[in-house]
Amino acid sequence: VSDPAAKSIPKGTLADIGEFGLINALRERLSTEDAQPDVLLGSGDDAAVVAVASGSVVITTDVLVQGVHFRTDWAPAYDIGRRAAAASLADIAAMGARATALVVALAAPADVQVAWATSMADGLRDEAALVGASVVGGDVARSRELAICVTALGDLEGRAPVTRSGAQVGDVVAVCGRLGWAEAGLAVLSRGFGSPRALVDAYRRPDPPYAAGIAAAVAGATAMCDVSDGLVADVGHIAAASAVGIDLRSAAFEVPEPLRAVAAAYGTNPLEWILSGGHDHAMVATFPPSTDLPDGYVEVGEVKDFEVKERAGGRVSVDGETSERPGGHVHF
Amino acid sequence: VSDPAAKSIPKGTLADIGEFGLINALRERLSTEDAQPDVLLGSGDDAAVVAVASGSVVITTDVLVQGVHFRTDWAPAYDIGRRAAAASLADIAAMGARATALVVALAAPADVQVAWATSMADGLRDEAALVGASVVGGDVARSRELAICVTALGDLEGRAPVTRSGAQVGDVVAVCGRLGWAEAGLAVLSRGFGSPRALVDAYRRPDPPYAAGIAAAVAGATAMCDVSDGLVADVGHIAAASAVGIDLRSAAFEVPEPLRAVAAAYGTNPLEWILSGGHDHAMVATFPPSTDLPDGYVEVGEVKDFEVKERAGGRVSVDGETSERPGGHVHF
Repeated sequence: VSDPAAKSIPKGTLADIGEFGLINALRERLSTEDAQPDVLLGSGDDAAVVAVASGSVVITTDVLVQGVHFRTDWAPAYDIGRRAAAASLADIAAMGARATALVVALAAPADVQVAWATSMADGLRDEAALVGASVVGGDVARSRELAICVTALGDLEGRAPVTRSGAQVGDVVAVCGRLGWAEAGLAVLSRGFGSPRALVDAYRRPDPPYAAGIAAAVAGATAMCDVSDGLVADVGHIAAASAVGIDLRSAAFEVPEPLRAVAAAYGTNPLEWILSGGHDHAMVATFPPSTDLPDGYVEVGEVKDFEVKERAGGRVSVDGETSERPGGHVHF
Repeated sequence: VSDPAAKSIPKGTLADIGEFGLINALRERLSTEDAQPDVLLGSGDDAAVVAVASGSVVITTDVLVQGVHFRTDWAPAYDIGRRAAAASLADIAAMGARATALVVALAAPADVQVAWATSMADGLRDEAALVGASVVGGDVARSRELAICVTALGDLEGRAPVTRSGAQVGDVVAVCGRLGWAEAGLAVLSRGFGSPRALVDAYRRPDPPYAAGIAAAVAGATAMCDVSDGLVADVGHIAAASAVGIDLRSAAFEVPEPLRAVAAAYGTNPLEWILSGGHDHAMVATFPPSTDLPDGYVEVGEVKDFEVKERAGGRVSVDGETSERPGGHVHF
């Protein structure tokens, strides 16, 4: 991770420096001094060229919109960049792949400060650097509201992708990473508070367990996704794609102290944040029952038989009971 | 190209069908009946997987914003989708690569009609199909204004990428595809008119000469880009990246009849549209002087020596004279 302070930040707004001034400022921030063996041709041409050793490339795209996915008054630009990169990088990890490159499109009003855009770019670069990936290209455009579209590429390094559709009856369901922290942090910010800091920071800058995605693939995970809509919703995606049911055991979830404290103060059940909260980008995967779970994974449930015509209710139950839960942020 | 009418279009707005209803409607439109050998895993998982035979992948991203890049009152949704795909597909072609896959993020207000979104998706799918590519994934989000972010992947099939930086003094500059048509069409629409239809259609739905990108690479082009900012601006990018000058010969450009007619009516010089108009996505490339130009290319200029310290003015001249020209749409 290079030192952002070592690079100059043009003063003023995007209108002051113009499109090409902005592109130059962003490229300066996003360039990495270290040799990036995956980058055969970086930004500055019609397109970038990224090495792909293993015959296929994994690709995912996510758009984050001001007022919907982030609020500039709730998080500094740097953290918004970290978070925007994390959303796509976690998707790559959840396929069992290693992220190699990002491209980023920024739509922004002309009165946005250049320093905001360059700090956001610093965050993108630093989050990508956590997994050895780099930003290889992008686009900028004027718009009425801020939006950031991040597309990530990944390399399966010869492994098969871990899709959502391979879960087998009898598999164990295991989770790696934080659950509910970001949702609780969002609840704190929504009430106008700034602490507990650990929760607010979890919302501002998620900490996806990227290495756990590849580790699950290597260990033989049958299905996997990252938890972005909430655990019940996301295991529901696995259950539907795999044509199975999933039962989660509430006793398997440890309730961390900050969640317990804030839930008590707000009169909420912290387990609901754990089961329904999005944005932490934990990994949830299913494994054959005999699997030695990779480091950091905690068994939280089991894959069950599910016949649509025989059973009412959803595919996902908690302690044997199905119930409707909100699934993170639902658009429109 | 499949028949859009054969698929159902949910009635109402995005708010009426919700996020997952929209995703399902779009996936239904974007799925292709034909086997797509490049697509190893299509949409519906955390990420898609695309085959890459030749050890590297080409990637480019473009964002189009309502009121800046398109106006819903100036073009039907289908054409906006065609145009959004064309912007990225032309970038892939301009590297000398074959486009394989697109991912698309759509940010849209909740009151947008579902039929608008599905028609736009039809346009994306059909434009991609022109080059044998398909839409393999995407994201949707609520926003205050419409924006479409298209990321395209391409395969160099073992060729070296044709960058902007390889032009050599003495090379010929050649163009394939329409120049100025889209800009003239935009001028027509901006004045509230709808004809000449050929120009308006050229703006609404550009017709990039995709095959000419690969043909130029095969023929030994030393540098190439697509004309999206305007010919003078875009050969300026080649000249700067290659540390050369470029002289264009105005007599080399045929002025098509519709441009001549509208320019006369508006009191404009049609050559300025040809030299400065963006959005047509023609290919401009430099070739060693002995090259047999590929079909469709017209020689329009020459690569010259350029020493910054010796010569004032820009790197690009027309008939030996440099002059400031607007370079398509400049943001902020």
